[in-house]
Amino acid sequence: MRMSRLFLRTLRDDPADAEVPSHKLLVRAGYVRRVAPGIYSWLPLGLKVLANVERIVREEMDAIGAQEVRFPSLLPREPYEASNRWTEYGPNLFRLADRKGNDMLLGPTHEEMFTLLVKDLYSSYKDLPLSLYQIQTKYRDEARPRAGILRGREFIMKDSYSFDIDDAGLEESYRAHRAAYVRIFDRLGFEYAIVHADSGAMGGSASEEFLAVSPTGEDTFVRSPGGYAANVEAVTTIAPDPLPYDDAPAAHAEQTPDTPTIETLVAHLNEAFPRDDRPWEAADTLKNVLVMLRHPDGTREPLAIGVPGDREVDAKRLEAQVSPAEVEPFGEAEFAAHPGLVKGYIGPAALGTESDTGIRYLTDPRVVTGTRWVTGANIQGSHVIDLVAGRDFTSDGTIEAAEVRAGDPAPDGSGPLELARGIEMGHIFQLGRKYAEVLDLKVLDENGKLVTVTMGSYGVGVSRAVAAVAEYAHDDAGLVWPKELAPFDVHLIVAGKDETVVAGAEQVYDDLIGEGFDVLFDDRLGKVSPGVKFKDAELIGVPTIVVVGKGFVDGVVEVKDRATGERTDVPLADLIAHLRG
Amino acid sequence: MRMSRLFLRTLRDDPADAEVPSHKLLVRAGYVRRVAPGIYSWLPLGLKVLANVERIVREEMDAIGAQEVRFPSLLPREPYEASNRWTEYGPNLFRLADRKGNDMLLGPTHEEMFTLLVKDLYSSYKDLPLSLYQIQTKYRDEARPRAGILRGREFIMKDSYSFDIDDAGLEESYRAHRAAYVRIFDRLGFEYAIVHADSGAMGGSASEEFLAVSPTGEDTFVRSPGGYAANVEAVTTIAPDPLPYDDAPAAHAEQTPDTPTIETLVAHLNEAFPRDDRPWEAADTLKNVLVMLRHPDGTREPLAIGVPGDREVDAKRLEAQVSPAEVEPFGEAEFAAHPGLVKGYIGPAALGTESDTGIRYLTDPRVVTGTRWVTGANIQGSHVIDLVAGRDFTSDGTIEAAEVRAGDPAPDGSGPLELARGIEMGHIFQLGRKYAEVLDLKVLDENGKLVTVTMGSYGVGVSRAVAAVAEYAHDDAGLVWPKELAPFDVHLIVAGKDETVVAGAEQVYDDLIGEGFDVLFDDRLGKVSPGVKFKDAELIGVPTIVVVGKGFVDGVVEVKDRATGERTDVPLADLIAHLRG
Repeated sequence: MRMSRLFLRTLRDDPADAEVPSHKLLVRAGYVRRVAPGIYSWLPLGLKVLANVERIVREEMDAIGAQEVRFPSLLPREPYEASNRWTEYGPNLFRLADRKGNDMLLGPTHEEMFTLLVKDLYSSYKDLPLSLYQIQTKYRDEARPRAGILRGREFIMKDSYSFDIDDAGLEESYRAHRAAYVRIFDRLGFEYAIVHADSGAMGGSASEEFLAVSPTGEDTFVRSPGGYAANVEAVTTIAPDPLPYDDAPAAHAEQTPDTPTIETLVAHLNEAFPRDDRPWEAADTLKNVLVMLRHPDGTREPLAIGVPGDREVDAKRLEAQVSPAEVEPFGEAEFAAHPGLVKGYIGPAALGTESDTGIRYLTDPRVVTGTRWVTGANIQGSHVIDLVAGRDFTSDGTIEAAEVRAGDPAPDGSGPLELARGIEMGHIFQLGRKYAEVLDLKVLDENGKLVTVTMGSYGVGVSRAVAAVAEYAHDDAGLVWPKELAPFDVHLIVAGKDETVVAGAEQVYDDLIGEGFDVLFDDRLGKVSPGVKFKDAELIGVPTIVVVGKGFVDGVVEVKDRATGERTDVPLADLIAHLRG
Repeated sequence: MRMSRLFLRTLRDDPADAEVPSHKLLVRAGYVRRVAPGIYSWLPLGLKVLANVERIVREEMDAIGAQEVRFPSLLPREPYEASNRWTEYGPNLFRLADRKGNDMLLGPTHEEMFTLLVKDLYSSYKDLPLSLYQIQTKYRDEARPRAGILRGREFIMKDSYSFDIDDAGLEESYRAHRAAYVRIFDRLGFEYAIVHADSGAMGGSASEEFLAVSPTGEDTFVRSPGGYAANVEAVTTIAPDPLPYDDAPAAHAEQTPDTPTIETLVAHLNEAFPRDDRPWEAADTLKNVLVMLRHPDGTREPLAIGVPGDREVDAKRLEAQVSPAEVEPFGEAEFAAHPGLVKGYIGPAALGTESDTGIRYLTDPRVVTGTRWVTGANIQGSHVIDLVAGRDFTSDGTIEAAEVRAGDPAPDGSGPLELARGIEMGHIFQLGRKYAEVLDLKVLDENGKLVTVTMGSYGVGVSRAVAAVAEYAHDDAGLVWPKELAPFDVHLIVAGKDETVVAGAEQVYDDLIGEGFDVLFDDRLGKVSPGVKFKDAELIGVPTIVVVGKGFVDGVVEVKDRATGERTDVPLADLIAHLRG
């Protein structure tokens, strides 16, 4: 392809709304172009990279025997009504009505449709196992579409679904997908982590995410030196053993005026009630946080969460615990409705379904029997000291809502956790029988008995992968594509207006094409200086840059490696071999 | 691919809603599956054929230097508001609002978006000519989705757009696209006709359609022995020369009781007013038909159309003439609002913008000065005879709304027309400056002056092509794919349970794959008889069927040509060469 004809304008300035490198560079280098918030067009360069990602994904899915199909994006409401996701998706779902008034939606994911299709065609255990996939456009009306194609409202995903007769089959389908995903992400070439995505109730493998490790990632995850990795929602806390409390003094309420925060409270404790062995710390206090849950049916319920005072409640961890309910703030109106709560001094005595308020009270797993706490006394300006869990109060259960911090122990004992950020690129999930039950997908087993099929669901962010690779593989000058994803094999530049040089570059262009290379030829003459061409080449990021310039009269061209910056003078006769090497 | 693993169930019965062969066969053979009216999923076999069509289209578009991009399907309202198509599309447009209440649409075609993209990136005549294309999912909320994927509400199109600085450039871009379309449709392998799609004001090439000739096609078109072809909307009528009328008798109204139809009128004329030279015919009468036009802005306007009594008003031709207005019936309420009209006996005296009713009156081009007509006298039970056009009445103009009939002369004098039916598969169109003007796409010309770009728009129905080929290439037993579109190269059948035969078929399968053939291997054992396998093979329609059966012990397999039915015994050693031959 000749640059003089390529539909491309490289831009000098970052787009105004761009914050992350991939967004800036993909727009500046002419790969994508914004149409509306979270909605992008693919320009010729971008579409070539996208096609390369699709090819890799397709090859690896085919390799595990998954079969490609394609569902529509525009879907009827009914199946999503049956699964309750028509409601559960809330404002994230694009809904519309057709000319006859039938409710429809733009598919955010297709579990329901695949379940119905298999039900439609298959009826026997002999038909299983089965894995189907599609590479297809999906829609989610994100509240905050951001970072270009990294989090769009229209995007391309590979989603696949496995169908098995029993748990062992599901386990095997899951393992095959996991292995395919490892190969896909190895080929995409960015650093990634495979993290537990739930608490590991089913042996830790019921749900895992593939995260591209990136400082600009939206997801925080943890990893340990011993190889444990999980997203923060999935980290479980190692509960300490219960402590003896026979020697503990009785709880005693004390005046702690003007101490509505943990900081002011700890300062006051150390001044008014100094301890002999060590000073009071935030970790000695028990902070009780109130929120409102909004359930999918629209009902609202208050919830109290007790966490050690040195930790915040982590919104994502809390949301994961209470899902599908949504978390809303506990505002002035709610306090007014519960006069038993003294704001800033709320204590366990006022909480719990057995208490006067009747508010459900869940505590951090660290709040085990025998632990001693300073916490609210339910009296303005007062706290209670030496309140012993299991002696003086109990909660309605535990909740994994406290923040995870660097240095916390990994749940599997593999060492202290470090925090990192990542971009969710893949998710594999043992769905089990949820959709099969709701939509009645049953097959006859070997004994002629109807059994419910068990399913897995597996996704790869295909358009997002283009951004994730760009996020990983770039430098200050521009993009640096790995060979398998690059829009072209070679970026050929003619540097100079001399007739011999121009004719030579044309010859090199023809030769390279003849040898099967996909070449972007910067043949622009006139006002476009070699400097502009070099800058564009660095920005566009084709892995190998060949420059035909002054050296051509001596039979030499320059080959530059975009990634390392290394330049080599190569005799023309050796060029093909050099590029192949 | 082994049939035992292929996600496929062939069906014995036609789907209940299927009327045309392609719909029946594509569903029965497991190529597509209905999700909602006009909305289909692609199963593995169908997706392979679809990919083959896409490949052909892509190759031919690339060959003329068009560059592939991809726009989103979910689009903002504003550009379509600017072009007025947000309104003009009426109920055919899927509209929705996002979570913030912004109006959006599912793109039915992308003229606006391409115009804006080029405006966004390009600014000089040096950037032109430019042709861009996409292969992409489109949406139209058809009132009557029908025939499976032949007329769906979600479908795949290739749409391309050319951008030129002047008319000569547009003409050249148009010719390049036309040539590419000829190659595409030649490769798809069905019979097609290239028809004028408008009245040819710009030399007859401003708009042409590619129709797959098919008795089940929705579009009627005409063609002449001399090579003229047009859709019925585009056929123009050869107006006769004006006739002298000096000798014509004066018009005279006559009692014609109970003659509200042309038939009853002609019978009455021949009985009560017999002519010496020849009997009265329907062609001697002038029929005046009333309709209501609904304009895009919602206003309604009555329109009267005068056509010779032997022809009906053709709804499609009328719609094409009055577009973007829509045609609605002229009902009782409208007659009540125009007491000057006597239903069944309406004549020119009551029509025309100069008349008392003020109703616009357009007549067939055959109604030239000097022609003599029997027509309504605007009195119940009365007609006027010898009413001479140009002497006794004039209309507000002519309209091409009368039906076209077999035997009518081709407008270019190339002989009598015959009628045929077709499926619209492609449309090429010299748009001109319509969208560029509305969206302000200008570039600097050689003199530094801003000029408006001129555009062409070109479409191919990609998913529809799968159905059109099926419609053309099938027989009673099933589908008959041409080689370039077939889901597999070879359909291999093992006929027999004998161990040697089964092992032999497995060996042939491996050999064929090793030689690069894409093979569907019907390896099903157990209850699936050879008869069922043969039936499935005929239904699925892979061009070459190889049967490994009894002959295998003598080193012979049977090769069957799906299209001709011809069977050949081929020695194993010659199989590859035979298949390549």
